[in-house]
Amino acid sequence: MNLNFRAVIFILGTLLLFNGLFMFLCVPLALSYGEYWLPYLFSGAFTMLGGAIFRAVGHSQRTNELNKKDGFLIVASGWLVMSLFGTLPYLVSGAIPSFTDAFFETISGYTTTGASILTDIESLPKALLFWRSLTQWIGGMGIIVLAVAILPFLGIGGMQLFGAEAPGISPDKMKPRIKETAKRLWIIYLGLTLLESVLLYAGGMEYFDAINHSLTTMATGGFSTKQASIGYWDSPFIHYTITVFMFLAGTNFTITYFALKGNFRKVWSNEEFRNYLIVTLLAVALVFLAVISLHVSTTEKSFRDALFQVVSIITTTGYATYDYTMWAPSLVVLFFIFMFIGGSAGSTSGGIKIVRHTLLLKNSILEIRRQLHPSAVIPVRLNRKVVSPEITYNILAFIMLYLSVFFTGLILFSFTGEDFQTTLGAVVTALGNIGPGFGDVGPSENFSGISAYGKWLLSGLMIMGRLELFTILMLFSPSFWKKY
Amino acid sequence: MNLNFRAVIFILGTLLLFNGLFMFLCVPLALSYGEYWLPYLFSGAFTMLGGAIFRAVGHSQRTNELNKKDGFLIVASGWLVMSLFGTLPYLVSGAIPSFTDAFFETISGYTTTGASILTDIESLPKALLFWRSLTQWIGGMGIIVLAVAILPFLGIGGMQLFGAEAPGISPDKMKPRIKETAKRLWIIYLGLTLLESVLLYAGGMEYFDAINHSLTTMATGGFSTKQASIGYWDSPFIHYTITVFMFLAGTNFTITYFALKGNFRKVWSNEEFRNYLIVTLLAVALVFLAVISLHVSTTEKSFRDALFQVVSIITTTGYATYDYTMWAPSLVVLFFIFMFIGGSAGSTSGGIKIVRHTLLLKNSILEIRRQLHPSAVIPVRLNRKVVSPEITYNILAFIMLYLSVFFTGLILFSFTGEDFQTTLGAVVTALGNIGPGFGDVGPSENFSGISAYGKWLLSGLMIMGRLELFTILMLFSPSFWKKY
Repeated sequence: MNLNFRAVIFILGTLLLFNGLFMFLCVPLALSYGEYWLPYLFSGAFTMLGGAIFRAVGHSQRTNELNKKDGFLIVASGWLVMSLFGTLPYLVSGAIPSFTDAFFETISGYTTTGASILTDIESLPKALLFWRSLTQWIGGMGIIVLAVAILPFLGIGGMQLFGAEAPGISPDKMKPRIKETAKRLWIIYLGLTLLESVLLYAGGMEYFDAINHSLTTMATGGFSTKQASIGYWDSPFIHYTITVFMFLAGTNFTITYFALKGNFRKVWSNEEFRNYLIVTLLAVALVFLAVISLHVSTTEKSFRDALFQVVSIITTTGYATYDYTMWAPSLVVLFFIFMFIGGSAGSTSGGIKIVRHTLLLKNSILEIRRQLHPSAVIPVRLNRKVVSPEITYNILAFIMLYLSVFFTGLILFSFTGEDFQTTLGAVVTALGNIGPGFGDVGPSENFSGISAYGKWLLSGLMIMGRLELFTILMLFSPSFWKKY
Repeated sequence: MNLNFRAVIFILGTLLLFNGLFMFLCVPLALSYGEYWLPYLFSGAFTMLGGAIFRAVGHSQRTNELNKKDGFLIVASGWLVMSLFGTLPYLVSGAIPSFTDAFFETISGYTTTGASILTDIESLPKALLFWRSLTQWIGGMGIIVLAVAILPFLGIGGMQLFGAEAPGISPDKMKPRIKETAKRLWIIYLGLTLLESVLLYAGGMEYFDAINHSLTTMATGGFSTKQASIGYWDSPFIHYTITVFMFLAGTNFTITYFALKGNFRKVWSNEEFRNYLIVTLLAVALVFLAVISLHVSTTEKSFRDALFQVVSIITTTGYATYDYTMWAPSLVVLFFIFMFIGGSAGSTSGGIKIVRHTLLLKNSILEIRRQLHPSAVIPVRLNRKVVSPEITYNILAFIMLYLSVFFTGLILFSFTGEDFQTTLGAVVTALGNIGPGFGDVGPSENFSGISAYGKWLLSGLMIMGRLELFTILMLFSPSFWKKY
């Protein structure tokens, strides 16, 4: 396998064209709010120009010869190039003049993380905030669509890349028409975004806020148009609605597809979905019990906040209705743990993900039985099917890599001189694509106070976490670049 | 395989006889210091009586029929029964009147952890402090000897239990005469303890302190006869001497044996030892650079403290010359990470251990290559030998269990209401058998302020960590108790 650089560049060009088109969407919005609209026009035009040049330099025909390596390179460089051009609206408008900050905010968008360096969100132009929300929605779309549609369309077996995006995870393969599938999932993504917008608008949100929050909910992104995040609205309807959609965004979109088709037996027989539900409910119960014992608010509000925060963290969205780090110091420990869970595979959520935890916990328990009966072959099963040792092995390796990157991240971030809680919170939230952390980067705080070195480090962790580590780490392997 | 309960009970009786004999050692010491000596006589007699009853109820002949399950049960119940009787000197002397506290202190001893609930160590009778140090030394002896000697002596393949104590780890098997080997390692353990005592005495420590610290160094235990730990002595010689012996105690005793025989090629060709040395040096360098930049003391003292603290934590000893949590908040992060390392397999140190990290890191890196070349068989090698997938699998399962227990421990400990840093510190230090943690249980603090619930929880984590998880978790598996 040799890398088809020119084909990769051609595809990056196509991605940039789309990116530019999305930037243009901000122009009419700016005009309608009477804001300065030239920055979005300029950014969009520049990005599309970039895209055109990439396509000219690249080679369209060769995209039929793309191989697995190219796939990895497209994913990794795709996210990077999109983020580089995505900084333009921030830089050109002058809203975020520092490149480090603009890049941090942009990659936090495309990786659907939601960590922000903004200290006064409401003061920014609405068109720019819309762009900010769009980066997350594009990122979420990328995560779903790229894996099952774009690359197969280019002649690459979708499963190979699904293998890169979510190693070994294919709860229901739906092989034959991957392109069809991708289109369906994309329609679900768009449909749920629209539905949520309508509901939030009906619940009393302004039209602009309703759309923005729907974009960032479905991407499990968590960017808000308000500095106080969802806590700005004191409406149970809004809180519960967003909770439901966060949960849906953290659900495997294939499962949602089956549910919409009325095939509930298929939904319930899916082990990851069951465990996702059970883990969420258990976590909510745990936090709810802790919160009512603190008597900070009414029982309903305590339940709502516990539910909202738990779902927000487990789905790696990162919205806040309440600065939960203020509840009690010991609750921070619980949320720290929740940050290692992650939503479902095949959703827009980040993190380790439930299916991996499920497989590995099962495997660890079976390992005890294997020790007692060394000669017996005791395989791991998922959805009643035997999981091949290679897949289990791969997932074990993934978790080890995840933790290695986490610990390496801690060591490197410790040089910023931030305190224990801030360091742990910043690293876990960036790697898990969640958004806010604890301490100085907690839900009521932001990342503006972190040093430039720290911001670049966290940017790296965000992209590594988002692209399931292997995709990025692969590029550091000498054999990746070797010619045959 | 059925459990031979009466044989297990017989062996526990034998262990108790030895335990009682060790308690008697405190009697002449108490007499020589003019302290009240009856508690030790009474505790020793009671323990020996218990041992005699166990042996009478048990069945000596059946010890020839012991199987693997019995082995696991002996290890787990052995540590528990020793700890229960080991509380007697504390309770009878009235020095620690609370059973919870006495049990915590005792299990912290036998597991060579070194976490303490004592708030004024110097005020206690010297004979009792000697007993406290002895529990660690006995525990360390147990860890080495049990795995390779006692159980094979009882007719169980030593490797099977070595498999339980340190799954899959046998850097150099030295199969044939395990009993001989155990005796050798035990002599090394005793010899190093005596040598350290002499050196510490020569370095200016009192005779009593020198012996006590040698007992707890070689066990990587960390109990001190001073509230200020090793910081009590302001002597470079003492600090460096203890550092060297901590490092030796964290080295595979087989490696030390080869070194003593002059077979240095064997020592250096051992991957775990090399990595143990490299990791330690890197960690020291990292901390040293951070500490000199703080300008808290001279370069030599900064180096010495950095060296001492890093070796103390990596070997899971837990002594302190300086409250390193006071250096800088970001250094706490580094030490938190070091607490997950652990010394070498086949040493007295606790934690995950270098050989497991080595194998898993190698495997994770190879996994990237496996993704690129799915058809190629790329095995992991250790010391140039191919490691069977079963062993790698088992170690992966171990790490997953370790982290599951760690996170479960965090959740359960969070109910104590302690803060983030204290919770993380307490759980990681107990599970890794280190000793002090951070925050309210940091090096200048102790565990007296933790609730009874928290102390029992930490006691459970200490024994789980010490017995490499499987041994304890096995007992919760229904198939363990099933009859065939």
